[in-house]
This record gives sequence, C-alpha cells and structure tokens, in this order.
Amino acid sequence: MLIHNTWYVAAEPNELDAAPLARTILNQPVVLFRTASGDIAALEDRCPHRFVPLSLGKVLGEHIQCAYHGAQFGVDGAFRAVPGQDTLPNVCVKHFPVVQKHGYVWIWMGDPELASDTSSIPDFFYRGDHPDWDGGYGHFESIQAAFGLINDNLFDITHAEYVHPGSFGGEEMRIYRRSQPGEDFIDQKTTYSVSERAITFRLRSLGMDQGGPFYRWMVATSLGAEQYSGKVDLDMQVDWGAPCYTSFLLNARPAGKPPAEGAEVCNMHAITPETETSSHYFYRSIKNYGGKELVGPFMDGVRAIFDQDKPILEAQQRSVGHHDIASMKSVSFAGDLLYRKARTINQGLCDLEQNANLIT
Amino acid sequence: MLIHNTWYVAAEPNELDAAPLARTILNQPVVLFRTASGDIAALEDRCPHRFVPLSLGKVLGEHIQCAYHGAQFGVDGAFRAVPGQDTLPNVCVKHFPVVQKHGYVWIWMGDPELASDTSSIPDFFYRGDHPDWDGGYGHFESIQAAFGLINDNLFDITHAEYVHPGSFGGEEMRIYRRSQPGEDFIDQKTTYSVSERAITFRLRSLGMDQGGPFYRWMVATSLGAEQYSGKVDLDMQVDWGAPCYTSFLLNARPAGKPPAEGAEVCNMHAITPETETSSHYFYRSIKNYGGKELVGPFMDGVRAIFDQDKPILEAQQRSVGHHDIASMKSVSFAGDLLYRKARTINQGLCDLEQNANLIT
Amino acid sequence: MLIHNTWYVAAEPNELDAAPLARTILNQPVVLFRTASGDIAALEDRCPHRFVPLSLGKVLGEHIQCAYHGAQFGVDGAFRAVPGQDTLPNVCVKHFPVVQKHGYVWIWMGDPELASDTSSIPDFFYRGDHPDWDGGYGHFESIQAAFGLINDNLFDITHAEYVHPGSFGGEEMRIYRRSQPGEDFIDQKTTYSVSERAITFRLRSLGMDQGGPFYRWMVATSLGAEQYSGKVDLDMQVDWGAPCYTSFLLNARPAGKPPAEGAEVCNMHAITPETETSSHYFYRSIKNYGGKELVGPFMDGVRAIFDQDKPILEAQQRSVGHHDIASMKSVSFAGDLLYRKARTINQGLCDLEQNANLIT
Repeated sequence: MLIHNTWYVAAEPNELDAAPLARTILNQPVVLFRTASGDIAALEDRCPHRFVPLSLGKVLGEHIQCAYHGAQFGVDGAFRAVPGQDTLPNVCVKHFPVVQKHGYVWIWMGDPELASDTSSIPDFFYRGDHPDWDGGYGHFESIQAAFGLINDNLFDITHAEYVHPGSFGGEEMRIYRRSQPGEDFIDQKTTYSVSERAITFRLRSLGMDQGGPFYRWMVATSLGAEQYSGKVDLDMQVDWGAPCYTSFLLNARPAGKPPAEGAEVCNMHAITPETETSSHYFYRSIKNYGGKELVGPFMDGVRAIFDQDKPILEAQQRSVGHHDIASMKSVSFAGDLLYRKARTINQGLCDLEQNANLIT
Repeated sequence: MLIHNTWYVAAEPNELDAAPLARTILNQPVVLFRTASGDIAALEDRCPHRFVPLSLGKVLGEHIQCAYHGAQFGVDGAFRAVPGQDTLPNVCVKHFPVVQKHGYVWIWMGDPELASDTSSIPDFFYRGDHPDWDGGYGHFESIQAAFGLINDNLFDITHAEYVHPGSFGGEEMRIYRRSQPGEDFIDQKTTYSVSERAITFRLRSLGMDQGGPFYRWMVATSLGAEQYSGKVDLDMQVDWGAPCYTSFLLNARPAGKPPAEGAEVCNMHAITPETETSSHYFYRSIKNYGGKELVGPFMDGVRAIFDQDKPILEAQQRSVGHHDIASMKSVSFAGDLLYRKARTINQGLCDLEQNANLIT
Repeated sequence: MLIHNTWYVAAEPNELDAAPLARTILNQPVVLFRTASGDIAALEDRCPHRFVPLSLGKVLGEHIQCAYHGAQFGVDGAFRAVPGQDTLPNVCVKHFPVVQKHGYVWIWMGDPELASDTSSIPDFFYRGDHPDWDGGYGHFESIQAAFGLINDNLFDITHAEYVHPGSFGGEEMRIYRRSQPGEDFIDQKTTYSVSERAITFRLRSLGMDQGGPFYRWMVATSLGAEQYSGKVDLDMQVDWGAPCYTSFLLNARPAGKPPAEGAEVCNMHAITPETETSSHYFYRSIKNYGGKELVGPFMDGVRAIFDQDKPILEAQQRSVGHHDIASMKSVSFAGDLLYRKARTINQGLCDLEQNANLIT
C-alpha cells in the first residue's frame, strides 16, 4: 500500500548543506541538492548517459555535475553542459517538485499536475519553524518496517506503557484506552474527532502521582529543578494527518495550575516510504520553554525513547514479511480504535489513487 | 527433506534461565520460556494482535507478556490478559509439546496426536543427566548447512583423519574403513548392527602408538598426568538414532588394561533443522572421570574440534545449494557405508510422513 | 553478455604460491593450484564425492587433496587416491586449460576444442614479463560491476578528468575528445584504428603546463627529482583487445625532448567475469625507468588511482541492476566513440558464440 499523490518529507534542510543527498523514496532513487543561490532540487538519481547516480557528483553553482564524465544538469533536470561538446542532448532527467516548509524539505512523487495542492503538508507542523520553539531533528534512515506499521505505532499510544515505560508510558496513562468521539476535554478522559483526512485526539490526566516520567521531567526542567516530586497535570493533543503525519503536543504542569502556565513539548513525526517494506522515519522534538542549554539533554532523551520503537517495528516487519498486514487475520484490541480509523482513511486514499490510474 | 514427526532438541535448559528464547525450527519461529513455577512452554513466536515476536517480551509468573501492548498468554497459548479490556479474545497462539529429558529441552513440531510417543528421544542420551558424568554444552546457532549434511558428517568417522588430524583422527584409526555387520568386538576391527531406526557401530583399536591424540589425552588426564607416552587401547561405541542423534562413547586406557579401568568420554550430537538449508547443531561432551577443574580445558578442547567441521559443512552447503544432495550424482567411497544406511532410514521416515499426509 | 571462448586472466602467478586458490569465473567455481613440479592446474572446485570445494584442501606433490575425506586428484582431474580403498572411481573432476604467459595465469572456460587458439591472449601484454620493466600487481576480487561496464570505463579516457583529476586527468587532456580514424600522431591530436578484434588509439599532447599530474610525476621521478615544474610532452598509446584487455603505454618527457628519452609506464588491465554482474579486475603497472626503490611509491600511487573507479562502477551497476546496459535507452556523448566500438566488437563475438551453440 503505497500512496503517491501526497507531499512527503524528503530531508531535514541541513542535510543538503554539504553535498548532494541520495535517498530512495517510493522505490525511486532521488538526489536532493541545494544550489549556490539557495534553490532546492530533487532529480532522479541517475545520469542519463551512463546511469551513474548523480548523488556521487557535486554542486557547481546552480547545477549538479555528474561524477563520471562531468555532465551538468539544472534544477529542472535539463542538460547544461557536456565537457568536450557544444551541443547538448535534448533530454531531461526526471525532476520532482520540492518545497521547504515548517522546518522540512518536502517532495511530491505523484502525478505532477496535482502537486500544486499543498494541503497534505500538515498545518499542525507549523511550530516546526516558529521562533517560540526550539529543539532538534532526528531520523531513522531506511528503517526496515513498512510505512503502515510505523503509522500504526505512532497513532496507537497504548504501546507506550510497554515500549516506553520509563518515559511516556505508565499505568496512570491507561485512561486513553476507552475513547469516545465528540466530547470535549474531560478529566481523566480522552476524546477524538475524525475528519476526511485527519484525526484529532485529546487526553487530560490530572493529579498523576506517577504517570509518564517524561511529563514529570518536563515540569522539573521548566521549574529549573533537578526533580519534581509533586503531582502532575497533563494535557495531550495528538493530531494525525493522512497519510503519515503525527504531532504530539504535550502540556505538563504542577497539579492545579492552569494549562497556560504549563511547559509544552511538541513531537512531530513524518514517515516517508522507501520501499513497500522500509521507510525513512523523520522526527522533530521542540519545546517552548527553557534555554538553548536544555536542547542537548532534551534531544538525547527523546532519541533514546524513539530508539525503543525501532527493534519492535523491525521485528514486526520480519514477522509480517511481504504480506500487507491489513490482509492478515489478526486479533483486535479495544485500544486499536484510532489507528484502525487512520488505516481506513489511508486505504481510501490508496484506492482512490488506483482507481484514478485505471481511468486515465 | 524435513521430518516433522519426531522429537527435536529445542534448547539447552540453561538457555531459558534469563529470558524467553527465540529459535526457528523447521521454518517455524518458536518462542521457548520457563515460567516461575518451572513449566516449560513453546509457542509460535508471533502475537496474534500485531504479529510482534513474543520472544521480545518477558515472563510474568506463569505467563509470557508481549513487548508491544502487554497482552499475556499462558503456556497453552491462550490469552490471559489484555491491558485496558475485560474480555479476552477467544484465540490461541499455537503451542508445541515440550519435554525436558536427558539434559535437553525437546520439542515436537509434527502432528500433535503423535507426540505422546517419545521413543524418538534416544535412550543412549541417558548419560546426559546421570550423576556420574559431567561436562558441558555447546551449539552452533543457525549453522548454514542442511540437517542431512551434518548427520552424514557425524556418522561418517572417515573424515576424522582429515578434518580432525590433531584429535580424533589418525592413520591408525583407519581400521574402521572396512566394516562388517553382525560381528562382535574384535581387535583392530569394527562391527555394526542396523535396526529399523537405529544403527550401532563398534570399533576396537589396541596398542596404538599414535592413534587419535584425543584418546591419548584422555589416558593422560585420567592418570593425572600432563602427557602419556605409552601405547593406548581404545573402544568406541557409536549409537545413531533417526533422524539426527549420535552418541560417541569413548573408552581409552593404557594398552593391556581392561575397559573397566578405562577413562570414558561421551560426545552427544543432536541436529535440529532450522530451514531446509540451515540447522541448529547441539552437542554435549561429558566424562566419567576427573574433577570439576578438568571440565574447562576439556570443553575448550572439544569446542575447538567441532569448530573444525563448521567451515567444511557450510562450504559443502554452498556447493550443494538448494538441491537435495541425495538427488545429485555423486561418487561413493567404501567408507560411506554407514551414513548412507542412516540416510536411507531417514528417507524412509520422510516418505512415510508424506504418504500419511496424502491419505489424511 | 558473457563470452566463453576466450582466454581470461585467472590469477596472478604468486597467488598460487601458498595454497590452492578458489575463484568463480563465468559462474563456475574453479580451484587453481601449482604442483610441486610447477605445473599449474584449474579444476572444477567441487569434490565429486561429497561436493566440498577442493580449494579447502591442499597440494600434495602433484595432486590436490580434498579436505573432507582425503581423496586426491591429478592436474587432469582424475582420482589418484581414495584413503582406505584400492580401486579408484572412474570419474574425473572437470578441468580447464591453463597457461602462464606475459606475467599472468590464463584460463579457457569455453569449448575445449577451441582452446589451442591462444590468439586472444593479447600480444601487447608482452611487457608483463620483459626484463626491462618492473612494477607490481593489483586486483579487485569480485568487484560488483559487470564485465562490460568496466571495459567501457577503461576504454573511455574522457572520465579521467572527473574521476582522476589529481593524476591521469586534467583540462589539457581534453584533446582526445574529438577523435579521427586513420591519422598518425599529430600534436594535440588523437588517432585510432580498428581491426576485427582490436582497437589502437594514440594521443600526443605537447607542452602541457598542467596536464595530468601523473605524467609530470613520471618526468620528475625519471630525472631523480622530487618535482618537475617545466612543461611536459606526452605520448599515450592505448591498445584494446577483445573482449577485455587494455594496455596504456605512457611516454612522458620534458617538453621538446624526443620520445626516445621519455620515461615510460605501462598499465595493463584484464577483466574476468565472475557472474553476469560481478568481475575480477586485474591490473599491472610497470615502468622502464628508475630502480626497485621506486616500485613501492609507484604502486601505492597507482592503486589509489584505480581505487577511485571502484565506487563509480559499483554504483553504476546498482543503478543498472540486472539489465544489460546496451538494452537501456541512454544518451550518447561524443567521447563515447571508442568504447562503443569496443562494445560492438564484443557483441559480435557474443552473437557468434551463441549462434555456434545453436548449430551444435
């Protein structure tokens, strides 16, 4: 199940600083580069002369130069120079629309005529380049797990108690397990709403003695303290946008304080399919409190947490093999509700795309 | 050629002490674990919810808990708990009969109705948990060689002169090459007998000046000496049980002494198919003389010897590829007699099993 | 596109000094060895008894002995001994014609009746064992690139400016880009001639200020100097013989001196297909000036240059995959002229061989 007509995260902007970047997206080898004037381009990663990857070459001004025979191409994929000859081949390397927004470089791999619709770049990623927020980037290159398995993982916070018991999870967080649509924030309760391509999910947990240790750490660091031993109030808003974007906005504060006085952390996740069974998993973790000196330990902690999912996801993929997990007979748990809704939305997008291909 | 209706060694008992153990047997991923009360269980290594291997989880009392969402299963594979919900799915993870005997954990992967017949667990492994014998365990996890190639290797001691020249082999040991059935122990001679599922083979070599250096080492250590330079008398009894069990009982003594005064070593070998072309190769080496302090050097020596077979077997498998070696046109040597008989017995068991499947 | 009826380089002679050598050639595992009397042999690398590679064994006098059960074979592949039995199997291991010439061991993998024609061993490799020349050997074992891609690379010196800018390449060398057939050496010009199975290509570049730094290094070392800062005159003769032999004869001297006073280096390259998509790439670099003490730095430099091609070639192969590059739609550059002629010659040889197989 691969969806093509959507904007995917192709790279963190700083990945293009030093040299052209090779990355396979939806089975297509792509080279990404930034020119001297700052334009960003994505081309098929294959010189049309002898098929050497252009990513082995280098950027010369506004062009990328092939490492093998020195041919140069513009950001549109057209030949700009062939050493030793005056006429240029009337051939273009395939190029892909790219845009930089919300702290990421995005790419469109689908039907180029539909690329002008950027609504699939999720608005709820806006904090990604907002001046009130700082933090860091991380990604798993070629994690050996299908896009869908990672998406399920992110939008299913019932796994936190078992995979992240020392950080996000904890028995007091189990309240989310019995969700109801259409209700507003209620103490010790969760709510969610579903639109055509998005799901929003809210959780409020008040007076936690233990809860997830990460939320307690947020309160402590926002108070400039080593530890915080009082009770914690937590609001969590999870926004999911099809096919693969999830944002966790966490607000934690000493019990009884209003949310406006809470410390906030936003974890954003974007999954880009590499192949049917492997993915590039990008994440950003940012916070709206504390100084620059907090960013290092904050990112170390966050990376250690996300590292815990990787072996689970890859073992799951080995177990599933080349099957589509949706076609396998599996047992459902009550906590599966939301990620199964997300999966249904994605399946609808996939069907729509395949039907469109049948018509054209 | 995979045989299913037999008991295979699944694990050394101490492999289940710390955590659940993952092992693929006959192409089936299996998780093995021991509960708090000491029961041993083997389940399909796949949670029926999201297909994560159960071996990533942990044992909680009498249950195994999935690492992903905390579901718990009993030794029978039935759900015992799903966090956050009261009703349990009426589904079972497949479980496999297991039994602990003769120092190993055994598993039955075939037709469950036939598992009550434990006669395929070889009686001649009884020394494996006998108080008069001590020694150690070893195994090759996922050796890249088919079950049948390893079985051939074990029951063909003509390879010892070339693969193990510094230990088991030696020119004086060549007497085994011309075997005769039905005869008893004769000086410098070998005998063998074949039953429906077993072969026994005896060798007596008297007055060896050189022989296999390992037998000389046995005499020396049993005398508490560094070296022994006299002549050596050796009795060897090799018991093979279908499909894959071999025991070598060695009795070595100063020439002229009766066997009752000999030092004895027993090497037991059990092969468990992982796939058609890879195996788990378990061995135990035990002795009935010397103190605990001898176990360390004894096992170091034995492991070094068995390590010599591994590159041969894996190179042989690469050469054979995905063919069944029995279907390949090969040259026979006189020394092939016994392992070819063993192979014929195994082929008969395999045919029997496939015919039974045709009928049902 | 694999060509069988030709002599390929199988090994450097010193590779057979210590032990039998395993090498897969045209998908066929081969063992090469030198006997006590100096005969060289090439056999199928598989004992006909239990299919263990003979290359795991050892040379005993005039025979090779299998590592598993000690069987011995002569250079003709016939059984010479089976331990423990008097009669020998009337079976032969397949053997391949071999010959040592021009500093290499050559093998014939094709129709044995055609092996007596050694004309495919290129005469222009004669300097390989000529007393006036010394240097060293190098090879890439199992480089993951098809024979044809490497052959293209060698006979296409337009890549030097980009892949070898610090040695063979340089803007002043671009004169070769516009080649004309049938002309003799002209200043700043190149010429070439094509025969049925060979192409010769000559380049003369006079008065180079920069040129390829390697040619400047030749002039400096031939003068016994650290550096040479004057202008350089260069003659280069490139001989290619089907299907895969290339020799670069370089003559560099201070500008204005006659070629007879130039320093000469000869780089010889021979490609032997391992599989359809991988190769053994042998090279020799020799010089006719300077003492033995120059060989070390000379070979270090040459190896560093040829190492630059490997990542390009392997990336190109990954990009091409299992296709034949000739069947892929590609853009041509003017500089492709000569290697495309070589490719056409090879395709003709390949077609000839396949047609011959159809008839017989």
